[in-house]
Amino acid sequence: MSDIAAQAGVSIASVSRALSGSSGVSEATRTRIRRLAAELNYAVSPDAARLAKGSRGRVAVVTADLAHWFYASLLEGIMTALRGSDLDVLLYEVKREEERRRFFDELPARRQVDALIILAFPVSDQERLQLDLMGVTVVMAGGTLGDRPHVRIDDVEAARQATHHLILAGHERVALINATGRWRLPYAGPQDRFQGYLGALRDAALPGEPELVVQAEWGSSGGADAMARLLSLPRPPTAVVAFSDEMAFGALRTLRRSGIAVPHTLSLVGIDDHEMADVVELTTVRQPVLELGREAGALVYRLLNDETVEEQHVTLPTQLVVRGTSGSPRTVG
Amino acid sequence: MSDIAAQAGVSIASVSRALSGSSGVSEATRTRIRRLAAELNYAVSPDAARLAKGSRGRVAVVTADLAHWFYASLLEGIMTALRGSDLDVLLYEVKREEERRRFFDELPARRQVDALIILAFPVSDQERLQLDLMGVTVVMAGGTLGDRPHVRIDDVEAARQATHHLILAGHERVALINATGRWRLPYAGPQDRFQGYLGALRDAALPGEPELVVQAEWGSSGGADAMARLLSLPRPPTAVVAFSDEMAFGALRTLRRSGIAVPHTLSLVGIDDHEMADVVELTTVRQPVLELGREAGALVYRLLNDETVEEQHVTLPTQLVVRGTSGSPRTVG
Repeated sequence: MSDIAAQAGVSIASVSRALSGSSGVSEATRTRIRRLAAELNYAVSPDAARLAKGSRGRVAVVTADLAHWFYASLLEGIMTALRGSDLDVLLYEVKREEERRRFFDELPARRQVDALIILAFPVSDQERLQLDLMGVTVVMAGGTLGDRPHVRIDDVEAARQATHHLILAGHERVALINATGRWRLPYAGPQDRFQGYLGALRDAALPGEPELVVQAEWGSSGGADAMARLLSLPRPPTAVVAFSDEMAFGALRTLRRSGIAVPHTLSLVGIDDHEMADVVELTTVRQPVLELGREAGALVYRLLNDETVEEQHVTLPTQLVVRGTSGSPRTVG
Repeated sequence: MSDIAAQAGVSIASVSRALSGSSGVSEATRTRIRRLAAELNYAVSPDAARLAKGSRGRVAVVTADLAHWFYASLLEGIMTALRGSDLDVLLYEVKREEERRRFFDELPARRQVDALIILAFPVSDQERLQLDLMGVTVVMAGGTLGDRPHVRIDDVEAARQATHHLILAGHERVALINATGRWRLPYAGPQDRFQGYLGALRDAALPGEPELVVQAEWGSSGGADAMARLLSLPRPPTAVVAFSDEMAFGALRTLRRSGIAVPHTLSLVGIDDHEMADVVELTTVRQPVLELGREAGALVYRLLNDETVEEQHVTLPTQLVVRGTSGSPRTVG
């Protein structure tokens, strides 16, 4: 960079600003420096540009969970996108309300990061304000956060696809096992999936029956409990949509222990395409979690490197994967 | 700390050194300062002690994988142990030989960490030398690394427990589905589990039959393939030990698709107690992965804070968990 500075007759800092696209350099100077750089075959190093702007070269990834497939896969995708970028990843786990609040309280004082990727947990208004005051780049992965950049799926559509698949197969009594979150803050996932389920019923002119919507704690035990409650109904459903594959796995265990034939007596569809869905032959709606993570990592990288990012709100498509747990309702009772 | 320095008539740096246990302070001075500190009810702050020694307050966790249960659970355990410690975690993923080599090459120059936790991947002699030269605290989680601190299970014993359980149920033709690693370096896990399997056969005076030991790529697809190969034998085994639960899940799929009754016709035991093992009712040998991670995190914390650590080589016990995939061999052919 010093060759360019010498030839252009400006400071190294000016060269850095010109090449990184920062302000404080006249348009004429910028053009001259860029031409010189091109002549000297000078590759713009994102890191050099970053360091000149006083950045840390670190991205914080904040998650409420690590040991489950969805979060681990998101993280894997982010790491893949940032590998080789010279951005280091600082990892934070906030499992409870108080930990989340403390994290946001301490962030400005203690953490030295250029950007924050939040993995699919809700953020309070107060915490949003704290993020605004910090002024770092924030990307939400697996959800939305106001107008901030995000990468997600359409949860309404995912649940609609799952429900529609069962209706198309002839089912009229389709239940929903929905998840209750660990957060006191409202969380879009369960609300949106409920709406998608209702929408598919409405499109088919089927009545929404309150007894067919059960809430359970997120995870396979919750799914197992919820399925037991559905089987206890005077008239159980013939098909069930589960909030996630992990809840569907629990539901499958209850069905197996109850001796209920799947899909002959009851059909089951999950949402995720968890790595185990293929193994237990679960029909599901695939969400591309690794890609969500990769897109989030790439988005942060581009935003930090002053690349023009036209679309900061990315919604990746979901898709039905038909396996062995769904079929037509049996015609004889 | 300045109160103590004033009363003891020494510099603040000496107080710091005395309290943190560093050298450069005479034993007499150290004793005097410690007594004064006790009188003044001065709690030694690990962070203050660390900062006085010029440390970074950061631990690097290096893993070859993230999206799978074992690694994600180890990481979860480490995060749990370090939460609230004011040690930040930098995460690195090295998926291939070249990436691993590059990571160790660049570590001294680029990374500013006090300690490194390696998640269960093999390290070459050259890389060990690089670690020695760096002089940071290194802990291996889920394996061993020469004499360095480690937290692990006894892989020989885990495979012995799985095999012994099947022999005790009456099986004489017990197969092993072993994993081939992604690394060119030898990796202890598969070798040790093979030894444990052989040991259990030997203890029962059963012959080791080469055709009953099959190698497959780690993961559920590898397990599915390996089970298909075992079923193709002129005389298939009546029981199978799988290297891991994930390989057992794949094997179960092959068995289900082949219409083979489990455990009536064939018994299957895994090693792990993966979160899904309960869901598919897999008999397995439980390794306490979250605890392995927690112990590794706690070990790093204690080593960095100059706490006396008597036992730097921790081996946690494994335990048989009997579920639905193992039983006696059927007596009629």
